[in-house]
Amino acid sequence: MPPKRLSVQEYTAGIRAGSRTVLGRAITLVESTLPTDQALAQEVLQAVLPHTGHSLRVGITGVPGVGKSTFIEALGRFLVEEKGHRLAVLAVDPSSQRGGGSILGDKTRMPWLSAHPAAFIRPSPAGNSLGGVARATREALLLCEAAGHDVIFVETVGVGQSETTVHGMVDFFLLLMLAGAGDELQGMKRGIMEMADALCITKADHGNEQAARRARVDYQNALHLFPASPSGQTTPVLLTSAVAGTGLAEVWEVIENYAAATRQNGYFEQRRRQQQLQWLHQSIVQALESRFYTTGTVRQQLPAMQQAVAAGQLTPFAAAAQLLGLA
Amino acid sequence: MPPKRLSVQEYTAGIRAGSRTVLGRAITLVESTLPTDQALAQEVLQAVLPHTGHSLRVGITGVPGVGKSTFIEALGRFLVEEKGHRLAVLAVDPSSQRGGGSILGDKTRMPWLSAHPAAFIRPSPAGNSLGGVARATREALLLCEAAGHDVIFVETVGVGQSETTVHGMVDFFLLLMLAGAGDELQGMKRGIMEMADALCITKADHGNEQAARRARVDYQNALHLFPASPSGQTTPVLLTSAVAGTGLAEVWEVIENYAAATRQNGYFEQRRRQQQLQWLHQSIVQALESRFYTTGTVRQQLPAMQQAVAAGQLTPFAAAAQLLGLA
Repeated sequence: MPPKRLSVQEYTAGIRAGSRTVLGRAITLVESTLPTDQALAQEVLQAVLPHTGHSLRVGITGVPGVGKSTFIEALGRFLVEEKGHRLAVLAVDPSSQRGGGSILGDKTRMPWLSAHPAAFIRPSPAGNSLGGVARATREALLLCEAAGHDVIFVETVGVGQSETTVHGMVDFFLLLMLAGAGDELQGMKRGIMEMADALCITKADHGNEQAARRARVDYQNALHLFPASPSGQTTPVLLTSAVAGTGLAEVWEVIENYAAATRQNGYFEQRRRQQQLQWLHQSIVQALESRFYTTGTVRQQLPAMQQAVAAGQLTPFAAAAQLLGLA
Repeated sequence: MPPKRLSVQEYTAGIRAGSRTVLGRAITLVESTLPTDQALAQEVLQAVLPHTGHSLRVGITGVPGVGKSTFIEALGRFLVEEKGHRLAVLAVDPSSQRGGGSILGDKTRMPWLSAHPAAFIRPSPAGNSLGGVARATREALLLCEAAGHDVIFVETVGVGQSETTVHGMVDFFLLLMLAGAGDELQGMKRGIMEMADALCITKADHGNEQAARRARVDYQNALHLFPASPSGQTTPVLLTSAVAGTGLAEVWEVIENYAAATRQNGYFEQRRRQQQLQWLHQSIVQALESRFYTTGTVRQQLPAMQQAVAAGQLTPFAAAAQLLGLA
């Protein structure tokens, strides 16, 4: 039997007091698709909103095999042990089915962080819709901030549309890469390298150091060809070994320096404001689309229209006009 | 006084007979925002639809100063004179105000093509909305195909969102670059290099050849780091001089080979079908957004909501829910 729902006051007080149980239950609430849960979730979010926004939000991505869990465990441990931070690790993986063996859903992949009271790890919410997963993760991020976590990692797999989504909710976007450039990138989404605020070559150890240094030069040359980032900062290429524990302090230094510089030049605040407005716009468009595509008559006629359009028998604009007349 | 509107039958017959005047007037019709014009335009498009789809559609982009007009004039002349093609050149430039001195609106920048009966040049439709400009250009493209143009160039400036739009309406996307990599790219949109099916370094002449060859190696190395294109084709880097007339045959050979290879592996058809379905979806979403944002109560309350969201006083989701309740 699931525990009784708490009141807005109970959720808020529990989160602010640092109760991991209440924080976890509040995240379950924002992940729920039940209308009554969603209404309560919005009240909780509104109540904690003044206590949000004070963390450094870091997106971390990389194709499967790059060693993302090991990297997060190592960097996270460094932040907690050496820097005294309180860390939360969230994930965006639209393919995840909670309990179904999702690669992001397994807490045992970060044993040290999972066991430490200053770290909070939450697997990706389940759901096939990226929009739904994204909303739940953004809201979970706010709850973690209200609970006093001052560094938030949002991780994702670098193969789909979810990186753009994560990029839209973080202050800094870190792309993990393997030393053997080329083949390993085949599974990665095009355009992702240009979103990165830093590249980090993992597994630079065990005789792999030379390949990693070569890869760094290659990536630096490639990044040099890209247009400048609107942040005004260059995109460095770093080397780390989670196993040997090397490079982690440098990664964090890069992230902190980036935050300091963009706070100074105003980009940090500007990016956050833009993200808020984009989120508003996306929420609206998602709701409008959802209303439209679930309308009975639209659902009925859409497949035939799509077929006619794809076959070149009907212009897309004419088909759209007909469908819009039905909604 | 503007000429009287033609009937659907007159437009269709004139276009199919190759009348440049009727083609031009039909494009003016699809560009019109008057509801009666739009209804007539859709009838004309539907009537010519069976005669569309048979051209090779090539997107061409590059930052101002790369020599786009000169390149198009030179490559276009080669296609008309040497290859016997009938060329149409369209443009997507959302900032263009017809008659207001738009860089894309000036026919005199392509004097040879402008004067030749086998070439048809049309500046960008005016309009501040990219969605509107995109729709008009897509529909103009169909009209040009129905008029027998078997190669269509769609050009755009590589600085905004319009490249993604153009990429979504062409079979092949060509990115023009200058030899002095780096600084010249500062104005270019991030992510654009990864959309390109080929890179072409312009102005590889007059003592600039060595720099151009060096740039080619740099770009080839950078492209090597990108994930493979879904087309299954590699992205070559070409050198051209519009002034000396060198490299043009090679550019066209690359485009033709690409078309042949992707027709064979099925990607050509698949991309076109996807583009059609995307266009349908975009038309629907644009209409839904437009309906929503022009609703009186929404317009009235949106600015205050945006301010509250940007200031972190209201969650985007709560603001969206409130606004959606009004529409």
